[in-house]
This record gives sequence, structure tokens and C-alpha cells, in this order.
Amino acid sequence: MRQLEKLIDRIIERVNINLRELEFDVNPHMRGQIQLEKLAKFYAFYGITPHHPLNFRFSNSSLAGSYFLGKCSVDHAILYKSDIRGDELKGKGEYVKGLDYEIPLHDDEIIRIKDSFLIKTLIHNYSHDPENLEEYLIQNTAALHYANIHGSPTEGCFMGPFSTVDLTTIHDCVVGAFAYLQAGELSHHRIDPGTVWIRYGEEFDFLYRFSKDMLSRYIRHDAGEIPRGIFMDFVEERKEDFQGIYNLVHHKFSISVPEGAALDRYAVVRGQTRIGENVLVAQRAYLEDASLGRGSNAQENCYIINSQLEGYNVTAHGAKVSNAQLGNKVFVGFNSFLRVKQNTPLAIEHGSIVMPHTVVDLEEPLLVPSEHLIWGYIRNQEDLKEHSLSLKAFAELKGGFALGAMRFKGNGALFVETFQNRIGHILEANGAYFDGSRNRGHAQRNQNISFNTIQPYPEGELEGIYPTIEIRP
Amino acid sequence: MRQLEKLIDRIIERVNINLRELEFDVNPHMRGQIQLEKLAKFYAFYGITPHHPLNFRFSNSSLAGSYFLGKCSVDHAILYKSDIRGDELKGKGEYVKGLDYEIPLHDDEIIRIKDSFLIKTLIHNYSHDPENLEEYLIQNTAALHYANIHGSPTEGCFMGPFSTVDLTTIHDCVVGAFAYLQAGELSHHRIDPGTVWIRYGEEFDFLYRFSKDMLSRYIRHDAGEIPRGIFMDFVEERKEDFQGIYNLVHHKFSISVPEGAALDRYAVVRGQTRIGENVLVAQRAYLEDASLGRGSNAQENCYIINSQLEGYNVTAHGAKVSNAQLGNKVFVGFNSFLRVKQNTPLAIEHGSIVMPHTVVDLEEPLLVPSEHLIWGYIRNQEDLKEHSLSLKAFAELKGGFALGAMRFKGNGALFVETFQNRIGHILEANGAYFDGSRNRGHAQRNQNISFNTIQPYPEGELEGIYPTIEIRP
Repeated sequence: MRQLEKLIDRIIERVNINLRELEFDVNPHMRGQIQLEKLAKFYAFYGITPHHPLNFRFSNSSLAGSYFLGKCSVDHAILYKSDIRGDELKGKGEYVKGLDYEIPLHDDEIIRIKDSFLIKTLIHNYSHDPENLEEYLIQNTAALHYANIHGSPTEGCFMGPFSTVDLTTIHDCVVGAFAYLQAGELSHHRIDPGTVWIRYGEEFDFLYRFSKDMLSRYIRHDAGEIPRGIFMDFVEERKEDFQGIYNLVHHKFSISVPEGAALDRYAVVRGQTRIGENVLVAQRAYLEDASLGRGSNAQENCYIINSQLEGYNVTAHGAKVSNAQLGNKVFVGFNSFLRVKQNTPLAIEHGSIVMPHTVVDLEEPLLVPSEHLIWGYIRNQEDLKEHSLSLKAFAELKGGFALGAMRFKGNGALFVETFQNRIGHILEANGAYFDGSRNRGHAQRNQNISFNTIQPYPEGELEGIYPTIEIRP
Repeated sequence: MRQLEKLIDRIIERVNINLRELEFDVNPHMRGQIQLEKLAKFYAFYGITPHHPLNFRFSNSSLAGSYFLGKCSVDHAILYKSDIRGDELKGKGEYVKGLDYEIPLHDDEIIRIKDSFLIKTLIHNYSHDPENLEEYLIQNTAALHYANIHGSPTEGCFMGPFSTVDLTTIHDCVVGAFAYLQAGELSHHRIDPGTVWIRYGEEFDFLYRFSKDMLSRYIRHDAGEIPRGIFMDFVEERKEDFQGIYNLVHHKFSISVPEGAALDRYAVVRGQTRIGENVLVAQRAYLEDASLGRGSNAQENCYIINSQLEGYNVTAHGAKVSNAQLGNKVFVGFNSFLRVKQNTPLAIEHGSIVMPHTVVDLEEPLLVPSEHLIWGYIRNQEDLKEHSLSLKAFAELKGGFALGAMRFKGNGALFVETFQNRIGHILEANGAYFDGSRNRGHAQRNQNISFNTIQPYPEGELEGIYPTIEIRP
């Protein structure tokens, strides 16, 4: 196990050297987060299909429980139960377009992870950065439980538990627990825990901050300890349900999966669950008494419990939905938590958007009208007033605006339009609009994946470390 | 699936071109032996330990259910449930010694399989051929169910079901069902079904032939059909027991495995089974109410049922033992079948040798005295007389000798000595004599193997074909 210990030392040293200006030491945050013997015992796996670009390389790393789909190269890294979903990698010759540029790729895009330490982190490569078109890089970065790195090259960063960096290139940044960041490019910043920040150049700027008091109940992370709070309790309580599935080589569900839909074999399905046409259920999604209408998608690490989703619903990475009725095209963003009890149900009408990192934890039944945007921390009807706005009203915002703890400035119409376009893209990319021949997406391409398992050396000096494994077409 | 069909065509064409002089067409023998869809669904796997030389390369092949341990390169080949046990590969700089030569290896030895079609075939690389020290080659070769290729480079050959080629280099040969061949080097030969032939230069020559009548009951192989007979019925009846084990990623046995012993996680263990110290139970071994005394080894595809093995017993690849009492150091050779009912038990006393490909199918209880050699087809006391000789008597043979259907000529003492030395080597290599620090062998090195699964493309043109997979230290 000596090499594995050295590897951890090496990674921490590299992350720390990047964060020296911020005077941030990842040592107490990373050490002790995983039991080393688990790294030697758990297997990692990668998917093989004719639809995903195949080119994996793993070397001198440790990858317990991690999942790879699409070109990825990993070395000197520790990935513990992390999902690397390279299924939107761009190909050689494709063009990347921005507001004022259009650049072709010289080579196929690849995800490159080096000297990084990721725990239960999701990496999805819908990348945006025109400066690094061929290589989506996660280097010298440490991320804690259920952090999302989404289309965001990161270098020299620390990400707290349940944090998300979305379509943002970050250098030498510390992102606090449950912070959500979508800001284009950022260097040497420290983002406080519970910050929700969306900035698009000079066009608009949305900012919300959860209170310290609220955060300490939902997710707190004291140095040297495993993250704690309601978020962690929720996922820990359901951990057992995944174990049986992971110990089976072939696993089939008893529910029917209609034409055009994909149910990943590493998802959990319980109770009376129904899956509609063109639905995509990603791996590590958890469905219990859930009804997913046509074209919906349940992304990695999401939980949908005792809820009805009418159709074309996106439940994004890490989002949790319980006891809710979601109308047509209702979107629930990254790591949002609709924590609803059966006696205080939640209904959200069609076309509404639950912003990423929104917590709805109800004391009374609640109805969110159609075409509304909600954010922040909502426990009742009263909270809703300070944490929502109709899309129409939002689109009319210009200049500065404040509501409760939320601050907005800039072009409200562009903000709403950008959001809606993105939801449209997600549905399209996931295959929601597949008509049997056109508009094929992930739901159609992910129906039939072969998963290969890989494991490290089981004992000796190299225990827990991977040999060099290369997979090419 | 088109590429897979092309691959089959290609292999058959290559084997046939090698066998054109013998006017042998493998077409009717190979086609229809496996369902192609199984090739797309079953996984293959390879072991990772710090004790086995790691260097695998799989490319443009199909490997359903196959197992690899130690350096191997496979392409344009179909391996269906075959075991490639490269755990006695020689390293660079090691010397290979023969009677009158001693040659060093320039590189590490590797198993190379190309343009071959192997069904449930065992390849074990304890190689002997001084002409091909660095590459143990299996090329343009087709082998049917439960054939054993043991230390035998083969090129352009067809091997029938339950046949064995042992320490013999063969070129352009056809080896009939249940034939056993140990003859140094052989070209353009056709070995009839049921032939047991052991030749060592000019030193000795042992020949036995099973009758056609007997063979047709135990193993027959009509062109275009799956092999049939008692041998196939026996393994087919127990096939189900393996399936549960193969569908579990982690699998632990409830029986205790003492110090120095190895029980492979892909073995079947049933009933009251006991494993002694330094015992090696290989993968795909089947134990039911079996007692394996200290230092015994149960090799691939062997079955030991309701039997007591006192200690230092070798049950070689494919051997089947039921309702037997085997004394100390009793050896049961390749594919031998001790098919005994409970009311007609078999006892074999210490130091006796059951020759490879011996069938004991009893009508009455039988005792084989100590230090005897038995061969051929034995149903009762009467048969034993014509199919056995004490080792002492055998060692006194010189010149020609005949007993029943057996013919021997040459040096009997050298024959017995060679056999006993080999049994000694097998026990030593398998770790039977491990004392806690010295004499480490497979039983000690195989205790802790990580198994990685690999699968082919699940659909499309390449369905059933593997991507290029390389694994290095």
C-alpha cells in the first residue's frame, strides 16, 4: 500500500502548491476521507458501445467504484466512486461556436485527469472552453463528495461537498460546500459555501447565498471529518440499495423499458416505477415509486421518490425529488433538494425552473405556478415570495434587482433565454425528441452498454494502484 | 455482427489451408458450435496480481467467458470459455535446459494466440519447446470442447473434444476426440480419436487406443453437431452451478481456506468440502463433498465429487473423480474419468498413477494397489489386469512389451522416472511443499487475484468483437 500513500501525498502537495496564494491547505480536508483498503477492493468500470468514442488510458492511479463512458486518460489520480461521463465529447473537425468565434477541433476531444483526487465527483464534459478544445483537463484538483464538475476544466482547485462548477474554467480556486458557480472563467477565487453565482460576461449576474445556519444543518464539512448533515444522511440511507446491483455482473430490471428509453443497469429502481418513451435514466440514479413521463431524464446521482413527472422533465445531476408533482418541462437543477413529506406535497406546474442548488424543504403544501423560476431556500408559501419570479417578470429585469437574499443585475431576458435554451439542449442531447429515426440522443445510444470492470493490484507495494490499461477501438 | 462472421470465416480458412495436405475440412466441425449472440453477451476476464507477469493485449477478437492469467496477446481469434493460464511463463535471462542444451531467454515469454478458434479449451504454458522460447504460439488452430493445449505450441491444427496435446509442438495436425499426445514435435499427422500416445525420442513409446465402440458412448463428434456422450452429459449437468458464481462480482466461500492454500473465486464448492494446507483449487474446478488433503491440487475443469484425497494428490486439468478414496500422492491425469457409483467404490492406494485419459467406470468395487500405473478403460477387476502394472514392473521393461491394447517399447525405467519427476514438478510448482517461507508456488501466489472483466461491442457491425485492450504493469 506504500505506493498508494505516496500517491495521496503527491496529489495533496500538487493541489496545495496551486492554492498557496489563497493560503488554503487541503490536507485536513482530504486525508481520512476514504479508507485505503476500499481502494484496493472496489472495482472501477468503463462502458463500451459503438456510439461512444473509445479511448481509455488508466495508469498509476486508483479508481475504486468509478465509471467511465467515452475517451478518458487518467494518471497519478485517485477517483473514488466518481462518474466520468464523456458522452458529449467533440470530434476532430467539429466546430465550437461562441458569440464571436467559431473554431474547428484539430483532434478528438479527450478528458484528461491528472494528479487529482475526486470523491464521488461527477465529471460531465459538455465543455465550453474555446481555449482547450481538444483536452478537457482536471488537474491538481481535489473534490469532495457529490461535487459536480460540469463542462468545467479545473486546475489547482479544491471543491467542497455538493459543490458544482458548471461551464466555468477555474484555476487555483476554492469552492465551498454546496456552492454553485457558472462564471465563464475564474482564477484565484475563494467561493464561500452556499454561494449560487451565475455570471455571463457583462450580460448578467445572479447571486444568492444560503445562510450559515441553514448550511450547517444541510451540509457542513469540518476539517478532518467526513461531510455531515441532511444531504449526507439522505444519500447514506440509500447506499445499501446500490450494493446488490454492483455485485452482479448482469442485472436486469423487472419493469418494462419502452422504445427509445434507456435504463442504466447501475441505477436503482424500487416500488411502482414507470418509465415513459425516450426517458434516460443514468447510472447511480435512484427511482422509487417514480413515474417518468415521455422524454424525461434522471441524471447521475439524482433521486426521484414517490413523485410524478409529467414529461420532458430534467432531474439534473445530484438533484433529489420526493413527494412532488412536476408538470411538463419542469426542470430541477444540479443538487437541488425537493425534500417534501407526504402530508405537505409539492406541485410545480409546467415550464417552471428550479434553479441549481435550490432547497425546498416544506412545512406546508406548496404550489409553484407555471413558468416560474425558483431558487434558494423555501419552506413555505411565504418563502416562495422571496425566492421566485415568473419567467415573464424575470425577462423584464434590466439593471439591478434584489429580492430577499438574491441579487441580479443585467439583462433578465437573456438570462431566461439562456436558461431555456440550455434546457432545450439537455432534452435534445438526451434524446427526448427521438421520433424513431431522427433526434437520436443519449437515451437511444445508452440502451446497450457493455461494462468492463477493472481493478488494482490486490496486494503488495502496489496494492490499490492500477496497472497501465489502454483501450482503443 | 458482420465482423464476427467474417472473423469466423477467416479463421476457418486459415486452419483449412494448413490442413489441406491431410484433406481435412474444419468447416463442419467448427460452424454451429457456438451461438454467436453468446459471444456478444458473455464477458472474459483477466487476473491481476503482483506475482504474475502482466502484459495483456486483446484486439479484433472475441473472448466470451475466457480467462487469462499472465502475459498473453490475442488477435483475430475466438476464444469461447477458454482458460489461458500463463502462470509458468519464463522470464528474460532464465535458462531452458534439455538433455543436451541450455539456452537463455532474450525476452520474457509471452503466450500468443492468433487466428485461432478455441472452445472451452485450456492453454497452460509450461512450455518445453527450445525452438520458440519467447513466444508460446497458438496459431491457425481450432480446438473443440475441453481440449487441453499444455505446453504445446500449435500451428495449423484441429483438436477434437476432450483431446490433449501435452509438451508437444504440433504443425498441421488433426488430433481426434479424446486423443492424448505427448511426442516432442509432430507435423502433418492425423491422430485417431481415443489414441493415447507418449513418445520420448528414441527412449520410449507408449501407445493405447480406446475402441470405437467405447468412444461412441463417451465422446462422439459428428460433423455439424455439438459433441455428445457421457463426458458431455457429465459437464453439462453441472454447468448451472457455475452460472451463479459468474454473475457475482465479489464471491466468497463459506468454507475455510487454510494458510498457504488458494481457492479460486470461480471454482464451485458444494456440500461438505474440506481444503487442507497448501491446496490449490483452480478456477472452473468443481468440488462437492470432497476432502482435499495437504498439498493437493484440483486443476482447471476438474471435478472431485464425494471423494477423499489423502494429500499431495494431483487432479489434473479436466480429470473427473467421483466416489473414490485416493491415497497419498495418487496422481489422476488429464481428462481421466473415475466414474464410480456409491455402491461400487474405488480405492487407489498411495503413489499410484492414473495415466492421462484413463476411464474407470466401475461395475464392481475396485482396489488399485499402491505404486501402480493404470491406463485405458477399466470397468472391473478383470479389466484392471490388462490395464495396469506396478511401477516396479514397468521400470523393468526393456525393448517391446504388450498388455491388452497397450504397446510399449523402450526404457521402462526412464518412462516411470520421467512421470514421477513430472508429478514432483507439478506439486512443487503448485506450492504443495510451501513451509511458510520456502517453496512458494501457485497455491500461495494465487490467493489474492483481482479479476477484471472485458466485453466486446454490444451491438452494431462490431457486435461481439473486442476493441483493442492493452494492460501493462
